[in-house]
Amino acid sequence: MQPPSATTPVRIAVIQYDPQVGLEHCDGNLCKSLALVRQAAREGANLIVLPELANTGYTFNSRAEAYAHAEVLHQGPSLQAWAELARELQVYLVAGFAEREGLKLYDSAVLFGPDGLLGHYRKAHLWNQEKLWFTPGDLGFPVFETPIGRIGLLICWDIWFPEVPRLMAGQGADIICSLNNWVWTPPPLFDEAGRCMASYLTMTAAHVNNLYIAAANRIGHERGGRFLGCSLIAGTNGWPIGEVAGAEEECILYADVDLSAARSAPIWNSLNDLPRDRRTDLYDATLGYRLHAPMPR
Amino acid sequence: MQPPSATTPVRIAVIQYDPQVGLEHCDGNLCKSLALVRQAAREGANLIVLPELANTGYTFNSRAEAYAHAEVLHQGPSLQAWAELARELQVYLVAGFAEREGLKLYDSAVLFGPDGLLGHYRKAHLWNQEKLWFTPGDLGFPVFETPIGRIGLLICWDIWFPEVPRLMAGQGADIICSLNNWVWTPPPLFDEAGRCMASYLTMTAAHVNNLYIAAANRIGHERGGRFLGCSLIAGTNGWPIGEVAGAEEECILYADVDLSAARSAPIWNSLNDLPRDRRTDLYDATLGYRLHAPMPR
Repeated sequence: MQPPSATTPVRIAVIQYDPQVGLEHCDGNLCKSLALVRQAAREGANLIVLPELANTGYTFNSRAEAYAHAEVLHQGPSLQAWAELARELQVYLVAGFAEREGLKLYDSAVLFGPDGLLGHYRKAHLWNQEKLWFTPGDLGFPVFETPIGRIGLLICWDIWFPEVPRLMAGQGADIICSLNNWVWTPPPLFDEAGRCMASYLTMTAAHVNNLYIAAANRIGHERGGRFLGCSLIAGTNGWPIGEVAGAEEECILYADVDLSAARSAPIWNSLNDLPRDRRTDLYDATLGYRLHAPMPR
Repeated sequence: MQPPSATTPVRIAVIQYDPQVGLEHCDGNLCKSLALVRQAAREGANLIVLPELANTGYTFNSRAEAYAHAEVLHQGPSLQAWAELARELQVYLVAGFAEREGLKLYDSAVLFGPDGLLGHYRKAHLWNQEKLWFTPGDLGFPVFETPIGRIGLLICWDIWFPEVPRLMAGQGADIICSLNNWVWTPPPLFDEAGRCMASYLTMTAAHVNNLYIAAANRIGHERGGRFLGCSLIAGTNGWPIGEVAGAEEECILYADVDLSAARSAPIWNSLNDLPRDRRTDLYDATLGYRLHAPMPR
């Protein structure tokens, strides 16, 4: 099979399913993820996104349990299986896993291509009890050059911080892969359109940064928590391409995307251009200065 | 009447109506705005928000026409009328107007209280032909202390830049008054819930900054352009308080808001706090540094 080139069309697939925590489930979680990736590839997808902690489930009971679920980059069995499958199918595959490095754990994501590991990210903003198991990410917000475009990775609570997609846009990202275990958004969990607040954060970030966001969330219940589904692929204009996924069903969403939309001036008149219009004279310095100090509330 | 105190309840009113451009309409636009403010005050509102360019209409044909519509701060007849009405009704009144200072024009907003002018803001991010008439704002993104809370002002295209509400949150804003002439958002103009993309930008900015946003937009058609309505008052959780306004009808939206929601930790678990969780170690410096350079696209 020919490797993808810069002009390879990109078909994104976002996979929504129900991994379960507990060592007895890890093999099943991994097998499920591999089967769904195969299905997406059969449908022509070449960028396939699994959720956060795709092989382990989410709701650890203790730091020891999180350790037991974690894998070492390049070595872990899930990582090796995903890498091999990306090579076999000649696709780009993004997945979330619990990463162990020495004595530290990270809530991490990897991007595999046909030739191996292309990207690695550690969640910078930890949610709730994740702070008890994981160390905050220390890799910044990198964007990875690949033969199918520039790809950034973010994980769940990261998108509550508009700085994150902004920094990725500043590095020229075409597509952000957003790996989620959305377990909370402010009530009502779903509005009359069936979307949770995280859907709107995703749409907004795509629109104001003129890039695609492929957001994979999980579904299901686990140790008293409920996951919200609502996976979506937001276009560069912010609107979902196709449907926003439901709250309950396992599914794969697809979108054929055109990178030229992410690389052209985002706004449709001759006088505006979002990146150019940024008033860096007014806020980049002040953001650094003022918000470093404790907020006055 | 007693002046409001720090514990005065805040009832916000957002006014959606149809001002028309053209000098022959200015008196009518102003009269209409005054009548609607009186109506809102009769309903108990004490923070009343009019749209961008509330007395002039929006679609100027030339720089000369924009000049002819503009007023000088403290002196213009609309400004004097709004200031007097705020004093008479003992309310806080926010309105947008075309400001002339020397030879420059700004797309500006004012905040009047019972005792006179409390806040003045000049739109920093200009949209489309506004760049032909107006000078980009030079006042930063101030937040004004008032007896009913800390209030920031932003105008329309400003909210496409998440830096703006972030900076206001960093200064402790409780309420952002968002004055709009939303004339464009990416198609489809309205989704199945009847909202335009700007509604979601507003909801997102409120949620991720844990503050209220009172967004007044205009309606109607003018010289070939269509305004989108969809005014809303977003709660600190992001969701609209009450309805999002329709695309066509003149209306006033109301919300009783509790400033303690904007001043408490925004996220409902004991381990997260949005301002504290910001990874200023990872992005404030890099935002200033990396994004000052031209974007690599």
